[in-house]
Amino acid sequence: MKTHQITTLLLIVAALSSPFTVQAQEHPNLILTTQGVEKVRKNLGKVPLFDTTVLQAQAEVDAEIASGIHTPIPKDFSGGYTHQRHKRNYLIAPKAGALYQILQDDKYAKYIRDMLFQYEAMYKDLPIHPQERSYARGKLFWQCLNDSNWLVYMSQAYDAVYDTFTEEEHKRLEDNLFRPFADFISIGNPQFYNRIHNHSTWGNAAVGMIALVMDDEELLHRALYGIKDDGLALGLKDNDGGFIKVAGQKAGFLANLEEPFSPEGYFTEGPYYQRYAMYPFLIFGVAMENVKPEMKVFQYKDNVLLKGVNALLNLTDADGEFFPLNDGQKGMSYYTPETITAIDIAYHYGNKNPELLSIVEQHGQVLLDQSGLSAAIGVRDGKVKPFVKKSINYTDGPQGKQGGVGILRHGNEDLTLVFKYAAQGLSHGHYDKLSYSLFNKGDEVLQDYGLSRFVNIEQKGGGNYLKENKTWAKQTIAHNTLTQNETSHFNGSYETGSKYHPELYVYDDSNENLQVISATETNAYPGTNMHRTLAMIKHESFEKPFLLDIMKVNSESKNQYDFPFYYLGQVIKTNFSYDSPSSLSPLGNKNGYQHLYVEGKGTPSDKTTQFSWLGDGTFYTLTTATEKQDELFFTRLGANDPQFNLRRDPAFMIRRNNTDDTVFASVIEPHGSYTPVTELSVNSNSNISALKVVRNDDKYTAVTINVHKGDSSVFILSNKKASSSKRHQLKINGKVYRWTGPFHFTNMK
Amino acid sequence: MKTHQITTLLLIVAALSSPFTVQAQEHPNLILTTQGVEKVRKNLGKVPLFDTTVLQAQAEVDAEIASGIHTPIPKDFSGGYTHQRHKRNYLIAPKAGALYQILQDDKYAKYIRDMLFQYEAMYKDLPIHPQERSYARGKLFWQCLNDSNWLVYMSQAYDAVYDTFTEEEHKRLEDNLFRPFADFISIGNPQFYNRIHNHSTWGNAAVGMIALVMDDEELLHRALYGIKDDGLALGLKDNDGGFIKVAGQKAGFLANLEEPFSPEGYFTEGPYYQRYAMYPFLIFGVAMENVKPEMKVFQYKDNVLLKGVNALLNLTDADGEFFPLNDGQKGMSYYTPETITAIDIAYHYGNKNPELLSIVEQHGQVLLDQSGLSAAIGVRDGKVKPFVKKSINYTDGPQGKQGGVGILRHGNEDLTLVFKYAAQGLSHGHYDKLSYSLFNKGDEVLQDYGLSRFVNIEQKGGGNYLKENKTWAKQTIAHNTLTQNETSHFNGSYETGSKYHPELYVYDDSNENLQVISATETNAYPGTNMHRTLAMIKHESFEKPFLLDIMKVNSESKNQYDFPFYYLGQVIKTNFSYDSPSSLSPLGNKNGYQHLYVEGKGTPSDKTTQFSWLGDGTFYTLTTATEKQDELFFTRLGANDPQFNLRRDPAFMIRRNNTDDTVFASVIEPHGSYTPVTELSVNSNSNISALKVVRNDDKYTAVTINVHKGDSSVFILSNKKASSSKRHQLKINGKVYRWTGPFHFTNMK
Repeated sequence: MKTHQITTLLLIVAALSSPFTVQAQEHPNLILTTQGVEKVRKNLGKVPLFDTTVLQAQAEVDAEIASGIHTPIPKDFSGGYTHQRHKRNYLIAPKAGALYQILQDDKYAKYIRDMLFQYEAMYKDLPIHPQERSYARGKLFWQCLNDSNWLVYMSQAYDAVYDTFTEEEHKRLEDNLFRPFADFISIGNPQFYNRIHNHSTWGNAAVGMIALVMDDEELLHRALYGIKDDGLALGLKDNDGGFIKVAGQKAGFLANLEEPFSPEGYFTEGPYYQRYAMYPFLIFGVAMENVKPEMKVFQYKDNVLLKGVNALLNLTDADGEFFPLNDGQKGMSYYTPETITAIDIAYHYGNKNPELLSIVEQHGQVLLDQSGLSAAIGVRDGKVKPFVKKSINYTDGPQGKQGGVGILRHGNEDLTLVFKYAAQGLSHGHYDKLSYSLFNKGDEVLQDYGLSRFVNIEQKGGGNYLKENKTWAKQTIAHNTLTQNETSHFNGSYETGSKYHPELYVYDDSNENLQVISATETNAYPGTNMHRTLAMIKHESFEKPFLLDIMKVNSESKNQYDFPFYYLGQVIKTNFSYDSPSSLSPLGNKNGYQHLYVEGKGTPSDKTTQFSWLGDGTFYTLTTATEKQDELFFTRLGANDPQFNLRRDPAFMIRRNNTDDTVFASVIEPHGSYTPVTELSVNSNSNISALKVVRNDDKYTAVTINVHKGDSSVFILSNKKASSSKRHQLKINGKVYRWTGPFHFTNMK
Repeated sequence: MKTHQITTLLLIVAALSSPFTVQAQEHPNLILTTQGVEKVRKNLGKVPLFDTTVLQAQAEVDAEIASGIHTPIPKDFSGGYTHQRHKRNYLIAPKAGALYQILQDDKYAKYIRDMLFQYEAMYKDLPIHPQERSYARGKLFWQCLNDSNWLVYMSQAYDAVYDTFTEEEHKRLEDNLFRPFADFISIGNPQFYNRIHNHSTWGNAAVGMIALVMDDEELLHRALYGIKDDGLALGLKDNDGGFIKVAGQKAGFLANLEEPFSPEGYFTEGPYYQRYAMYPFLIFGVAMENVKPEMKVFQYKDNVLLKGVNALLNLTDADGEFFPLNDGQKGMSYYTPETITAIDIAYHYGNKNPELLSIVEQHGQVLLDQSGLSAAIGVRDGKVKPFVKKSINYTDGPQGKQGGVGILRHGNEDLTLVFKYAAQGLSHGHYDKLSYSLFNKGDEVLQDYGLSRFVNIEQKGGGNYLKENKTWAKQTIAHNTLTQNETSHFNGSYETGSKYHPELYVYDDSNENLQVISATETNAYPGTNMHRTLAMIKHESFEKPFLLDIMKVNSESKNQYDFPFYYLGQVIKTNFSYDSPSSLSPLGNKNGYQHLYVEGKGTPSDKTTQFSWLGDGTFYTLTTATEKQDELFFTRLGANDPQFNLRRDPAFMIRRNNTDDTVFASVIEPHGSYTPVTELSVNSNSNISALKVVRNDDKYTAVTINVHKGDSSVFILSNKKASSSKRHQLKINGKVYRWTGPFHFTNMK
């Protein structure tokens, strides 16, 4: 803390020690409570992290106050001035409200008062936003979603300074601004409000928050249970192609809590949107806990809200960045303000898990309320424990019966596998059944592309989803999984995809050095069954853990199978030869293929094909069992991308033609290291001399791995018997193997 | 420090407090001296950084001793086992020698003794290395250069344990190993030894080091002054196409100190090779200082060796990475062991500059000798001051008369320009006259490609220079400068390039907010004159400093001019339209053009062309004055690169056809920010509304910059009068401007 900040803080503390009595009153009661304020004020100057946050907020809010209150007539998309300005207003106002309560300085109340009356004066006659792209246009913003953001935050500001208004002023604000605002985003836009989607969660929470402040039972009911007769047609869709209404669908906050979360707290849209939705979920959860504790929102569905926070943290790489499953922007991490909120609340309202404090400490700031105080006191009192991420399997679906996402980790996140066998994931879902991504600490080894969007960068399609999100990012070929006949899973049909999900076959993380996850998918391509098994293995012959990847395919028809690996790094070596075209042409003309250039095309020189690359200071080798007729491709993203919306990322791809039943068996093996500072190239060659599929039928699939030193090992999967108590016996190369359970891995000597 | 390390250290200190008398003796005297050892031993346990280094070295050397001594028969290139093994031996042995002296533990002497006799037994009959690629093949390694590395290090090990050998053993080692070794790399390979080159510096130092240990005057003379009659033909070249012998050339260590260093310590090959050469320069400098202080090697050429260390540090970005001028590997930084040596020595033997200690502190380790002790004591005693890098202009050439490299910096390295108007730079030079690169802290804004080589990665061309180094990295089109008629400067002729150099026109860093560097080049394209002026400007209308770039071209003939900008990042916006080809073809067929794909081609929509991109969290806009007939290209590296040796980096390029005299006037403007964590897009648009060349003739070039807010400014350069006292007067748009000196920048209102 700098000297002048300390001085400021001392002045604050001095000011507070003058006699001041907190009056018993109804407000604030939404997020900050009267008791909370009392406790915060008693602790001022005593809890470093909280004090720092107060000073930061003061600096930020004071600067805004000095710059004046700006409520321009709305006109821009996400990246533009009017959007950013109104967003800034709603982010600053609740901070000013908290400062008013904590420091009792009237200037903060006046700031909010003036801003609210400016909005009140403007809103009365405000037309629908001029930008026409959204399926649910807002008034302050181009979409109701952002209007809902505004109301979620502004409700907190209003509550914080509630007692400074006269009755008549309350009536004016509520009649002209808050109630019409809540009506507009709900009954005015049922297609936005009355569905299962993160959009609706924001809408429901917004209506609920202001309902609690205004003590409006009708609005609160609308928030919790949705609109009864919304007049929406079944099958209606939003801008992203997502369903607005499906048969038998519930609506409202509780339904949005019920439906998208699995029992363990996985959110079906994926972590990027979970992070976004966690704010309204939790902040409205806190508000309900404070105002209507008898509703037990935090305990709803066996504490799913607090479990969701834990799930969110587990869905990050070693740098705290969320896995970019479905539509996810890379780089978004648990350092985001929404996650600060989530973690402080989860700590305070949950079981005071000391591991959460390690992330609070990294945040370097806390919420300006009793949760934040509680977390800051925990840090001050040395209760911090490291947040240790382990292997974990999350189911998907409201009852946990629609597939899931499995994460295998070895060591201190040295190798992390993210295997996606989840449901469609609503409108932000991708056609990526049985796909996976692989991380070495925070570095991507095999990437998931994520979304195609420059969020809030106006110049790039208004900061909204780009058309490449549909033509590339959602397509199957954009993922590390099987594409059949150059079409995406479910033929790219959201309706069809939403009906099905893969099934878990095995999940076993009981032995860190042999962790296995396996799942099947039978609907993505009718008549074709896929069964993918991933084993994270640490074997004595290998320097580091590696990933064994077995994709077994059975089909009623002969097909072309494309099987890509989206590696990141520089090509180091191949054991096959390939032709390099003198000019680059696209790999295909639709379903994502139109975006891939062919940079090289070859055929296997051997039954074991190897490809090594260098990425982020580590060498990697893909070793895969190939057939003579296979085609091997080097592809590069970027074709048919006139606006340069796509990254120029590479892939290695195996194509197997005219095949019904087959296995793609591969090892992804991290080895050695290189840094330009020492220029030492350590262990730059693969350890593997051969990888063979030695058995593949209905009953068993077996793969052998030989290493250069001479020893070899075998991995056997029982394809039909997943029971952990089932005993098996199998003869391979004249030797009999006996084991119990669905898989077996052993040295062959 | 971990507990067990502290315990170990206490044991060491305890062992040392037993009575022990240092005997007066001749050895060690090369790097460690007897007095140095005494001082080091007295301070053991008292200087944390030194103690830590001792423990680290012990751990490292003990592990090597435990693994045994391996001296395999040489066979591999740089990345291979035998190369790496012999390299490891020579890196470990001097550490063992220092530990022997410091800890007086005989096991370290025995380790060196055994290793030396293994080498002695092997070397006698060792043939020339089987790999045939080098112009000067070694015996232990594929090139004499690495053999010289070995001898530079092994001399230190030998000196450290010198007194443990009998007379007869000395004779055996020297007759069978060291003297023949020194002869082989010198008189056995004059084409390697007897030239001006970093290779020879290593060779000279190697011979000199062992000469000092063996007290061999003849060898020492050969080290300092080279071989008199080397029998080499004039015009002979090495593998890189560099000259081995030119008329009137001197040789030996002192000539290598004299020739490649400019008076301020800039090394003509560039910082990557300077870093490499600094080790033999300085370590032999120390050895001479210890054994032959009367030669005053450190004072040679007005302290050029110590000035060189400072120059090296100034040639780094904010992350400490060396600017990749000429052949330079990106990522190499002042954290490299060579630089640890350089800085400790420069601190101890120089004027104890406390700023060097800030880098010593970052190194976290020191040399195991009196220099390292001295630096560690400085750190312990709180003498550390930050190493503040400022704008600086380095001349090139032995007398500082062959152009140079100018570095302009603003703020705390917020914007750093590296302008190269240097001489050819020997065989590692590029055809990049008047090129520049631009950095935002440690991030490249406009990049210099560096070398095309994966140093020590065997799979990539044996870890040696790849052919793309010549076909791409050295070519003019690979750089941010002018290419005329698709040919490189000097037609890519090393002989021609070596004869000429640009001339500095202006360098002025006196006003941080208006720093200017300007230089001319008249020989790269006969009949064409280039005059490039770069101004780093911080103006009240701009959020951040920007770069004004004026390239004035005059030619006797009509030419095609290509003018690329190697930006790094994602395209955000253009104000011109362009066509995107459906398949990618190379831009040309030679001189580097064969490696560039055309990803887009357009024409200016306006006299002011703008292109914005997002790189590393900052927005950038290039604003440039274009003509109607100009062609605008988006290019992408990677064509005709079957081995994937090149990075797929983008460029924006202006092509001006059929033109003799012209000006390329541009502003590169950093603005705003974006981070995926907050998703806030701040100030993503350029501030500039127009950029015009309002005057361009023999006398003056003037450029106006208009900003959106309405104000405008003008930059005027006097093209013929560089004098700082010359008064000028010029009328532009009806207004008269008066100023003194070669340039003028002012608001137009």
